Amino acid sequence: MDFSDELKPADPQGPDILRQERVSSGLDAAQLARHLLHRDGFLERQAKILSIIEKRPLFNKKNLLNLARPHRYHIALARSKELRRLSLQHGWSLQDFKMAEWLVGEVNPYSLHTVMFMTSIREQANEEQLKLWQPRVDSWEIIGCYSQTELGHGSNVRGVETQAIWNSETKDFTIHSPTLTAAKWWNGSLGRTANHAIIIAQLMLPENGKLVSYGPHQFVAQIRDMKTNKPLEGLVIGDINAKVGYAGMDNGYMLFKNFKIPHSALLSRHTGITLDGKYIKPKNQAIVYGSMTFVRAQIIMDCRMGLGRACTIAVRYLSIRRQFADRDGSSPEELAVLNYPSVQMRVLPLLATVYALHYTGESMFNLYWATRSSVDKGDFSRLAELHAASSGLKSCCTLLVADGNEVCRRALGGHGFAGASGMIPITTDHLDKPTVEGDSFMISQQTASYLIKRVESCVKSTEASVGEPVDHHIRAFLQGSGPRHYDIYNKDSDILDAFRYRFAYLAHKAYQGRVEQKQSWTSLMVSLHRLSQAWSECILIENFYNAMFGARPDPPIAEATHTVLKDVFRLFALSTIDKQGTEFVVSGALRPEQLADLTPTIQRIMKAVRPHAVPLMDAFSIPDYLLDSALGRYDGDVYRAMWQRSHLENPLNVEIFNPDFRSEEIIMGEGEETARKRLEAMANGTFGHEQRLAPRAKI
Amino acid sequence: MDFSDELKPADPQGPDILRQERVSSGLDAAQLARHLLHRDGFLERQAKILSIIEKRPLFNKKNLLNLARPHRYHIALARSKELRRLSLQHGWSLQDFKMAEWLVGEVNPYSLHTVMFMTSIREQANEEQLKLWQPRVDSWEIIGCYSQTELGHGSNVRGVETQAIWNSETKDFTIHSPTLTAAKWWNGSLGRTANHAIIIAQLMLPENGKLVSYGPHQFVAQIRDMKTNKPLEGLVIGDINAKVGYAGMDNGYMLFKNFKIPHSALLSRHTGITLDGKYIKPKNQAIVYGSMTFVRAQIIMDCRMGLGRACTIAVRYLSIRRQFADRDGSSPEELAVLNYPSVQMRVLPLLATVYALHYTGESMFNLYWATRSSVDKGDFSRLAELHAASSGLKSCCTLLVADGNEVCRRALGGHGFAGASGMIPITTDHLDKPTVEGDSFMISQQTASYLIKRVESCVKSTEASVGEPVDHHIRAFLQGSGPRHYDIYNKDSDILDAFRYRFAYLAHKAYQGRVEQKQSWTSLMVSLHRLSQAWSECILIENFYNAMFGARPDPPIAEATHTVLKDVFRLFALSTIDKQGTEFVVSGALRPEQLADLTPTIQRIMKAVRPHAVPLMDAFSIPDYLLDSALGRYDGDVYRAMWQRSHLENPLNVEIFNPDFRSEEIIMGEGEETARKRLEAMANGTFGHEQRLAPRAKI
Repeated sequence: MDFSDELKPADPQGPDILRQERVSSGLDAAQLARHLLHRDGFLERQAKILSIIEKRPLFNKKNLLNLARPHRYHIALARSKELRRLSLQHGWSLQDFKMAEWLVGEVNPYSLHTVMFMTSIREQANEEQLKLWQPRVDSWEIIGCYSQTELGHGSNVRGVETQAIWNSETKDFTIHSPTLTAAKWWNGSLGRTANHAIIIAQLMLPENGKLVSYGPHQFVAQIRDMKTNKPLEGLVIGDINAKVGYAGMDNGYMLFKNFKIPHSALLSRHTGITLDGKYIKPKNQAIVYGSMTFVRAQIIMDCRMGLGRACTIAVRYLSIRRQFADRDGSSPEELAVLNYPSVQMRVLPLLATVYALHYTGESMFNLYWATRSSVDKGDFSRLAELHAASSGLKSCCTLLVADGNEVCRRALGGHGFAGASGMIPITTDHLDKPTVEGDSFMISQQTASYLIKRVESCVKSTEASVGEPVDHHIRAFLQGSGPRHYDIYNKDSDILDAFRYRFAYLAHKAYQGRVEQKQSWTSLMVSLHRLSQAWSECILIENFYNAMFGARPDPPIAEATHTVLKDVFRLFALSTIDKQGTEFVVSGALRPEQLADLTPTIQRIMKAVRPHAVPLMDAFSIPDYLLDSALGRYDGDVYRAMWQRSHLENPLNVEIFNPDFRSEEIIMGEGEETARKRLEAMANGTFGHEQRLAPRAKI
Repeated sequence: MDFSDELKPADPQGPDILRQERVSSGLDAAQLARHLLHRDGFLERQAKILSIIEKRPLFNKKNLLNLARPHRYHIALARSKELRRLSLQHGWSLQDFKMAEWLVGEVNPYSLHTVMFMTSIREQANEEQLKLWQPRVDSWEIIGCYSQTELGHGSNVRGVETQAIWNSETKDFTIHSPTLTAAKWWNGSLGRTANHAIIIAQLMLPENGKLVSYGPHQFVAQIRDMKTNKPLEGLVIGDINAKVGYAGMDNGYMLFKNFKIPHSALLSRHTGITLDGKYIKPKNQAIVYGSMTFVRAQIIMDCRMGLGRACTIAVRYLSIRRQFADRDGSSPEELAVLNYPSVQMRVLPLLATVYALHYTGESMFNLYWATRSSVDKGDFSRLAELHAASSGLKSCCTLLVADGNEVCRRALGGHGFAGASGMIPITTDHLDKPTVEGDSFMISQQTASYLIKRVESCVKSTEASVGEPVDHHIRAFLQGSGPRHYDIYNKDSDILDAFRYRFAYLAHKAYQGRVEQKQSWTSLMVSLHRLSQAWSECILIENFYNAMFGARPDPPIAEATHTVLKDVFRLFALSTIDKQGTEFVVSGALRPEQLADLTPTIQRIMKAVRPHAVPLMDAFSIPDYLLDSALGRYDGDVYRAMWQRSHLENPLNVEIFNPDFRSEEIIMGEGEETARKRLEAMANGTFGHEQRLAPRAKI
C-alpha cells in the first residue's frame, strides 16, 4: 500500500471511451467475427482452449520480458511439454494444439516437430518408412526437427554443402560436412531439443570411380542419444545463441564427421536409390518440395492475425489516448489521437490491410487444398500457379506485416516502446517472416518468371481457351490499345481493372526485356521484384473485391457492416495505389492529374471508417491473453494496467542500488566484492550456472 | 577440442574478399576518413579512448544478449561508474567521456545526468543557483535526471498535470500529482539511479483566492536519500519495466504527494517568481526550451553514425556472402550478394543516405552554434529557422535511420536475425528516435507552420532583402510561371532546383489551404507532414550538393574520391525522388515521362558506386568493438566469428535438456521438483532474488 493506490487516471476514463466507441459505431462485431472466423469452428476452439490455459501459472506472461534468453528456453520447453500433456488429457486435435501454441504466443522448441518434421515424414516417406516412423512421430516418442539451411547457404538450397555419400559395399550413407560453412544452421528445435532430424544433403553416388551429386535429398536420422540426449558420435550440435526474436526456440547448428545412416534413411516416396546404387528419379520435381509450398501458404494465411494483433492494440489505445486540443477549436479538451488525420493515415490503411490479408488468406487456403486434391488425382495443372502465387504473396504479405507492425508501434508514441505495449513479441517474432522459407526479395523472381512465361504464351497464342487464369488479364492488356485511365474514385470495378492493367503492363515490360531484348536476368531483378509485388497486390485487391462485390458475404453480415467493409476495401486499394503512384501513371492505368486527388479521397474514406475502427478490430476476436498489452486491452483500462506492470510487477524495483560512482557496489549494501564477482560472471557468460560449466566451455 | 576445430569455411575466404574489395576500389579510405571526421579530433579521440576501454573485462560485450533485463541494468550501472572513474584517472574531457559511452554502445543510467540535467542547470539556473548546483553536478556528487514526460502526456508538454503550487505563507512550493496519469514516466535515470531531478510542473500561483497556472516550469530537487538511495517521503519512484531497447537504462516513474521544495528550486535565469508570489515573465519564450532544440540538433548530428553502423555491416557482409550462380552465366561459382541489383537497390541508397546525413549533421552543428552565439549577443533572428529546421530534420532523419537500419538488417538475410549480426542494439536502440524529444509526425507541424508563415510573408512583400534564407526559394516559386521540368539526369544543379521547387509548391499549397481557404489545421495535417518532409529532404540535398559542388572539399580528398562522392550524391537524390515520384510530378518539377528513367538511372549509378562500397563505409571508421558484429568485422572473417559465438560463447549450450514431454524435468538430471520451483519463480518474477523480496511486492 502506498498513496498511488488512491489515485485514478484523469478523465475521460479508458473503459468509458471504448464502451462509447462500440455503442456509437453500432457495428455488430460478434456477427462480423462469425463471418470472418467461421471456418473450422475457430471461435469455439479459441474459447475452449483459452479457458484451459489462461489461468495456468506456467502460461502467465507477465515476467517473460525480464528473463534471460537461456531461461526463455527453459520456460518454452516446459510450456511445450505441458501443452502436449494437456493435448492427451483433453483429447486435443492437432488444430487444438496449434490454437494453444498461438494463444501462448511464442514459437516453442517442439514447433518443428509438429510442422516440418511431421510433414516431411508424411509427404516424403514411402509406405515402409511411414510404418516405421509415423507412430513414433505421432506419439511424440521421438522429437524431430528439419535440418536444411546451412551457415553458408540459405535460399539456395541446391547449394547445400552437406554430403550424403552412398557406400556401395556397406549399403549405407555417410553424412559429412566438408567445411565449416557446411554446418547446418538456424534449424529450429535442433539446438537443445530434438533427438531426430530430417537432414537435407547432397545425394552423392559413386559412378565410374568418382562421386556424382544428384542434388539435395531428405534423410531421416536419430541425432541424439535417447537416454542422455547428448549428440551421437560424429556430430557436433548446439544452439546458435541469441536472436532478434524467438527467444524460446533453440535454433541450432550441426556438423557431421563421417556419420553413418542406413539405406532406409533416404525418404523414398517420390525418389530414392536402389540397393545397388541406381538413382530413382522423382516423377514431378515440384512434389518433392511440396512442404515448402505448404509452409509459404501457411505463412500467408497467418498474416491477417500477424498484423491484426498490432492493429487491435493501435486502434484501441489511440481511441483512448488524448493529446492536444483542437488548434482551431474553443474547447480546451484534448482530442483522441486517432482523430488526427496524420495518425489515421498510418493506422487505418493497416486496418484495411488486415481485412485484405484475411480474404486472401482464405483464398490461398482454398487454392492450396484444391491443388492438393488435384495433385492427388494426378492432375498437376495448377501447381505452377500455386507456386507462383504463394511465392509472390509470401513476399508481399510478410513485408506488409513486418512493416505494418512497426508503423503501428510508432503510432503508439512513447508507450509503443514499452514492453507493456505488447508490441515486442509482435514485432520481433514477425521480423523473420520476410526472410524465412524463401527471402522475400529472392522468391519474387519465381513469381516474375511464371508471369513472363504466361506473357510469352499469350503472345504466341491468341486462343483464349488455353492457359492459366492469369492469362485473361494479360490478353486483355495485349489486345488493348494504349493507356486506359480508370475511374478509380467512382467505380469499384475500375480499381480492380487498374491493378490488373498495371501488373500486365509490368509483366509485358519484363517479357520484352527478357525475351525480346535478351537482357540479363540479373540486370532485370529490380523490375522483376516490382512485378511480383504488383501481381500480388492485384491478387489481394481481387480477393477483397470478390468478397465485397461478388456473391453475398457468407456467413452473412448486416447491410450496414457491408457498407463499411466496402469503404475498407476502397481504403486498402487507394492507399496501395498511393504508395506506388508512379507505376500506375507510367503504365497508363492512371492520368498524372488523378494522383492529386488520392490523399483527399483517402482522407474522406478514413473519416467514414474511423467511427467503426474499434469494432472492426474487435471482430478479429484476439483475446487479451494473447495480446498481453496494457495499451490494447479490450476493456480500455490502459493507465491502471501500465501502473500495475511498472509499479507492481517489475523485478528491477525489488532492489535498491548504489549510485555513487566512487563505490563498485551495485546493490546497496552487498559490498564491492560481491558486486565484482557477479558482474564478472555476467560479462563472461558463466552467471547462473557456475557449477555446471563443462570443461570444453572457454566462455 | 572437437572436430570442428579442423574445419574452415568454403572458399573464397572472407578476409581475401575484403582485401580484394579494398585494393580494387583504390579509394583512399584513410584520407576520406580525415575529410569526414576531422572536427574536434574525432579519429584521434576514438583511438585514444578505444585503447583504454576495449580490453577491460567489464566492457566485454559477448554475453550481453543473454542477460536478463534487470542484470543489463547492473552491468550498465557498473560500466557507468567505471567510465566516470576512468574519466578522472585519465583526465577525460566531457567529449572523451561521451566518446567512451558511444563506443560501449548502450545508453547508460548516468546518461541523463550528463545531458539534460547538466544542460538544464547550465541554461536555466540563475547565478545564485549555478553557484549552488554547478559544482555538485560537475563533480557527480549528485546524480540528476530530467523529469518531464508523464504517463498521460508526452508531446504536449503544456498538458503536464504535475502541479507546483506556491505557498504564500511558507514561501515554498508543493509538488503534487492530482491523478495517476500525472505520474512522471519514461524519465531516464530516474527509475533506480538518480538522487536529484529537474521536475517540470505547472507553476500555480494563488490569485484572488484561486490557483492560476503559468504553464510548465523547471524545478530542481533532491528526490532520494543520499545515504540509502530510497525515495524521499511523499514520493513513489520506480523503473517502468522492460522496453524495446535501452535495457541498461532505468527509465522511471514518479508520483508526488504534497512534496515540499523551497523557493530556490524554481530555475530562474529567464523566469521565476518573487518572494511575494509575483510572476516574472521570460523575455523570449524560445529560450526556455533551448535545451530541447539542442537535443534535437544532437539527434540529427548522431544520425550518420546511427545508420552508418548498419551500412558498414551490410556492405561488408554482403560483399562476402555468396548466393546463386549467375542465371545467364556459365560459371557455377556463386555471386556476391551485393552484386545483385535487387540487393543494391536496398543497401546502396542507404550508404548514400549516410553521406547525406553526414553533411547535414555538420551543417546543423554550424547552424546551432552560430545561432547560439547570436542569441548570446541578444540577436534572436535565426531562432525561428533553427527551430523549424531542427524539428523537420529530426523528424525526417530519424525516420530515415530507423527504417534504414531495418532494411539493412533484412538485406543480411537469415543471419540478420541473429544476435551475432550486431543489429539488435542498432535497431532496438534507435527505434525510439522517431518518437523521443518530439514525435516525428507531430513536430513536423512546427516546421510546416514556419513555412506557411514564410509564404505568407513572401506573398505580402516582394522585397527580396527582408526575411529568412528560405524566402529566396519561395519567391522564386511565386514569381515563376507554371511547372518547370528539371533535367535531373544531366544537370546536378537541376536536382537541387527540383527539390526546392517541390517544397515551395507544397508550402504554397499549404498556405493556400490554411490562409486563403481557412481550412482547419487538423484537416491539413497529412499535407503538413509531407511539406515538412519535403523541406527537410531539400535541406539534405542542399547540404550534400554544396559539399560536392560548392567550395573545394575541406579537408581535401583525391579527385577520384570526389568523383565517386558525386555519384553518391546523385544516388541519394534520385532514390529520394523515386520514393516520392508522385509529388515531383504533381508539383510540376518533373514530367511524368521522366519517372520511367528513374530506376534504370539509379541502377547505372549503383554500378559505378558498388566497387567502392567497402571503402566508402570503412571511411566512417566504426571500430569492430563498437560494431560487435560477426558479419561486419573489418577483417571479413565472418563464418569463423559466427561459429565462435554459437559454439563457444553460448551459455545455453552448457546445459543438457530433457526433451521427453512425459517428464517435467527441464535440465537433464535435475529432477522434476527442482525444475518446477525454478519455473514458478521465473513465471512470477521472483527468480534470482528470492531472499530480497520486499513485503510490498505482490509480484
